[in-house]
Amino acid sequence: MSTNGELNRKLRMALVGGGQGSFIGRVHCTAAVLDNRAALVAGALSSNPEKAKASAPDYDIKADRAYGSYQELIAEEKKLPADQRIDFVSVTTPNHTHFEIAKAAAEAGFNVICDKPMTFDLKQAEELAAVVDKSGVVFAVSHNYTGYPLVRQAREMILSGELGEINAVRANYIQGWLRTRLEESGQKQAAWRTDPSKSGAAGCFGDIATHAYNLGRYMTGLLPETISCHLRTFEPGRKLDDYGTALIQYENGAFGTVTASQISHGRENDLSIEIDGTKGAIQWRQD
Amino acid sequence: MSTNGELNRKLRMALVGGGQGSFIGRVHCTAAVLDNRAALVAGALSSNPEKAKASAPDYDIKADRAYGSYQELIAEEKKLPADQRIDFVSVTTPNHTHFEIAKAAAEAGFNVICDKPMTFDLKQAEELAAVVDKSGVVFAVSHNYTGYPLVRQAREMILSGELGEINAVRANYIQGWLRTRLEESGQKQAAWRTDPSKSGAAGCFGDIATHAYNLGRYMTGLLPETISCHLRTFEPGRKLDDYGTALIQYENGAFGTVTASQISHGRENDLSIEIDGTKGAIQWRQD
Amino acid sequence: MSTNGELNRKLRMALVGGGQGSFIGRVHCTAAVLDNRAALVAGALSSNPEKAKASAPDYDIKADRAYGSYQELIAEEKKLPADQRIDFVSVTTPNHTHFEIAKAAAEAGFNVICDKPMTFDLKQAEELAAVVDKSGVVFAVSHNYTGYPLVRQAREMILSGELGEINAVRANYIQGWLRTRLEESGQKQAAWRTDPSKSGAAGCFGDIATHAYNLGRYMTGLLPETISCHLRTFEPGRKLDDYGTALIQYENGAFGTVTASQISHGRENDLSIEIDGTKGAIQWRQD
Amino acid sequence: MSTNGELNRKLRMALVGGGQGSFIGRVHCTAAVLDNRAALVAGALSSNPEKAKASAPDYDIKADRAYGSYQELIAEEKKLPADQRIDFVSVTTPNHTHFEIAKAAAEAGFNVICDKPMTFDLKQAEELAAVVDKSGVVFAVSHNYTGYPLVRQAREMILSGELGEINAVRANYIQGWLRTRLEESGQKQAAWRTDPSKSGAAGCFGDIATHAYNLGRYMTGLLPETISCHLRTFEPGRKLDDYGTALIQYENGAFGTVTASQISHGRENDLSIEIDGTKGAIQWRQD
Repeated sequence: MSTNGELNRKLRMALVGGGQGSFIGRVHCTAAVLDNRAALVAGALSSNPEKAKASAPDYDIKADRAYGSYQELIAEEKKLPADQRIDFVSVTTPNHTHFEIAKAAAEAGFNVICDKPMTFDLKQAEELAAVVDKSGVVFAVSHNYTGYPLVRQAREMILSGELGEINAVRANYIQGWLRTRLEESGQKQAAWRTDPSKSGAAGCFGDIATHAYNLGRYMTGLLPETISCHLRTFEPGRKLDDYGTALIQYENGAFGTVTASQISHGRENDLSIEIDGTKGAIQWRQD
Repeated sequence: MSTNGELNRKLRMALVGGGQGSFIGRVHCTAAVLDNRAALVAGALSSNPEKAKASAPDYDIKADRAYGSYQELIAEEKKLPADQRIDFVSVTTPNHTHFEIAKAAAEAGFNVICDKPMTFDLKQAEELAAVVDKSGVVFAVSHNYTGYPLVRQAREMILSGELGEINAVRANYIQGWLRTRLEESGQKQAAWRTDPSKSGAAGCFGDIATHAYNLGRYMTGLLPETISCHLRTFEPGRKLDDYGTALIQYENGAFGTVTASQISHGRENDLSIEIDGTKGAIQWRQD
Repeated sequence: MSTNGELNRKLRMALVGGGQGSFIGRVHCTAAVLDNRAALVAGALSSNPEKAKASAPDYDIKADRAYGSYQELIAEEKKLPADQRIDFVSVTTPNHTHFEIAKAAAEAGFNVICDKPMTFDLKQAEELAAVVDKSGVVFAVSHNYTGYPLVRQAREMILSGELGEINAVRANYIQGWLRTRLEESGQKQAAWRTDPSKSGAAGCFGDIATHAYNLGRYMTGLLPETISCHLRTFEPGRKLDDYGTALIQYENGAFGTVTASQISHGRENDLSIEIDGTKGAIQWRQD
Repeated sequence: MSTNGELNRKLRMALVGGGQGSFIGRVHCTAAVLDNRAALVAGALSSNPEKAKASAPDYDIKADRAYGSYQELIAEEKKLPADQRIDFVSVTTPNHTHFEIAKAAAEAGFNVICDKPMTFDLKQAEELAAVVDKSGVVFAVSHNYTGYPLVRQAREMILSGELGEINAVRANYIQGWLRTRLEESGQKQAAWRTDPSKSGAAGCFGDIATHAYNLGRYMTGLLPETISCHLRTFEPGRKLDDYGTALIQYENGAFGTVTASQISHGRENDLSIEIDGTKGAIQWRQD
């Protein structure tokens, strides 16, 4: 990792995204500073330069490092002395902008934490992977549930063979907040997530089923052989799926299912997984 | 219903099956007498005549009505005066024998409660339906979960429109008792359930996924348009499925999934269902 | 036990109490017939002779054994042949009548299951104990929670020393149905339970704290050295306690608390107990 | 509050206590920086000067502000310019030292967050209150559960009258870590908590029952009229209580109980409270 020399010090973080009306930027920041080993020192908090600068005080970012765009952030930070400039960039913007920001940061030599999905499509992902490989920076995608202690414990148990051969994985991610056409009310989170030009080819499945799938992938270490998806859109007029089930045939013969919903009344954010092995089984849930 | 005249009295029940080593016969009996409106008075408790008679005292069935076979039971009970003979027969034997017993009872004019599955295959089911129609007896299949108060409450709410249009049904039935090849140990319950000649074309899916499917069918009143099943056998050498997932496209556009397992360590008998409607949702579970 | 000779047959039961508007009589009946080893054949279902007889069909009690009073029941059943007369009487009437009914039944040679409390006061209890000793009948008080499998399992574990020396017992019984002056509405269950002339010296503490106390007593086998009670009446005008806490010093040095409430909004019937031993601990709850 | 002038900036924090082997210092620090509105800049992390300085890198405290004692910390920080010196001191040392540290900090004009208990005895508390009043600094005692959103919601509901008049409070704090004489093994947390010269007059009751009591006090706003405590020491040789129950008569007529244990096998850190009002009730638990 590129840390400009010293090691036992707080890392200097820049946040791209996270301005007023956003959701996940604040979470990245809180998570980063939680154990007092990182400090948020710079930001390009919105694609709107005025809003970007106006949001800086909410994060205690000093005015001179509250940039109007990610391009400005990268250019200006590069000019700073090594013992002042940022160590890494957190990319917390809507999906369609991940690629350009992450690529620019990596090319400038800054380490990157990118919110999922890594990019808008596979072509971008492959191009970004090549850029990162060449740059030598650390590049991380924030599948955040992989950081939970019990999730790591499950992975340890499975990879060490404690559950035997894995046979079955059942994962569900159930929400209810898109039960109505919230996107038509101007709610920013709903608007970009249901817009194919910003969210990508999938709605609910890209947004949350990926977390459920990743949880099984991370806990078991298994790779899929085939995946078939059955997507549904239950809110009339919505352009992307808001419900679906995927069937996964893993390479080792295991069988997996992932069901995700954003139209379940009364459900806030319920993620669960059950894994069956020949010697043992695990269940994990958050709700 | 044929009740031999009087109405406000305990019904007289006969049990076919339920002898030593059996499982569900005792449950039928307990359920029937629970509210003191039925009395078990006769039985053909095993296909082995000696065992059938030896099991009678466990049920307080008098020796003269402890028959050696279901044929004998039907023949002898028919000879009794109307105010003594049985009102109904509970069929609690392995799957492959349901048809012949239920048919004989219906033809003799006795009402029938038949454990699920109704018959071994579709052809038998259609023949039995014709016999029952002609006989005028009451014929019931014991999908027992339909009797639970909360299940009935859910059905009421859904059929009355309280949940709006139904979009999605997720049902799971998870057990762990067939994680090993228990059928090879001589355990009677495992032996016939994993034997295609006694259980039928499906193992886990016929035994328990049917309950999970039926729960959604009963609660919502919806009929399926197409069902596709993905069955797996994870215990090597077993002849029938011990795991699987079904995808159900309902006629009204709703999408359903049923997952059933008999190979999940640590799970005894966990049945759950979640139903999403446009106006509301329900969750029910027993575990 | 007096069983009129034969042993492997259903016991014949008589119910005193249980008529229209009552609560626990039906529960005694259901519990008794559940495993098909007892049959309800006679009853004195109300202290009002007409109501007593009118309630009989609800229990399938034949008219000639539906008596107008417990005195009539005892007198008439004694005249029946040994192979027809009742084996035992379940006393399920308000507290102030337990003594006279139980005493009469025992003196007539009938076994007795008496709902708790055994009697109205200590003097009656001691007199009844003497009558029972002399009669040789079986006399049981229905502290029903002692029949739960997990409660028995806890007792086994504790009495066998698995938890080591018992240090502490925490039991709670929390209800909410007497949060209002329900007794003033004519609700029969509330009326007698809050009337010192029918319920006895204690309200909530006699009605439900006794179950919580008994649970600790039964599970641990410990005897108390001293008990101090702090009773409260929170509903103005009520004559008996509707809340309280007892502190119990057990003979072995253990310390126990019992808290009971009938005025907790949203609580139906929540009984819980926690027991700490030097080697282990148990928790049990029903709610 | 004394903030040296500016308002919209991160507060500068000093930690007293929190060195190697300590428990709550790290928690204070994490909680303080969590929302990025405070920075830990100085510390006197141990009463042992060498250990104090050696622990500084774990907190990213620079060497020149890693002091050898709280006296040194206060003296040196006072000399710094107003825009650099600390705003507040967190006192996270064993109980017997709270008074002297908090008093010195307040007298020097530094705001104080003091871990509970505020002081070792009542006399010290009254003296400290006078010092704080005179100094004008902010003085806070970290009864941390008062910061939980649901606890605050409960307080809001109760103080606004939503639950009506409060009748009863039941609070429990159950742990198991002192089931053995852990204090004899050299475990630092156990050692000072069971030593009357460091912990004060109470063990379990001072350490955790105070949290349970405070929770009721905070949620209801009620003041006690009388409190009677029944303390027990179940581990032979221990000098302070490890179990107990308090009965609380509140001024408004409400009745409260607090039970706390440190000797319950299998219990880590289980805090719960139930509050009954005339119009509603609340339950809250963490375990």
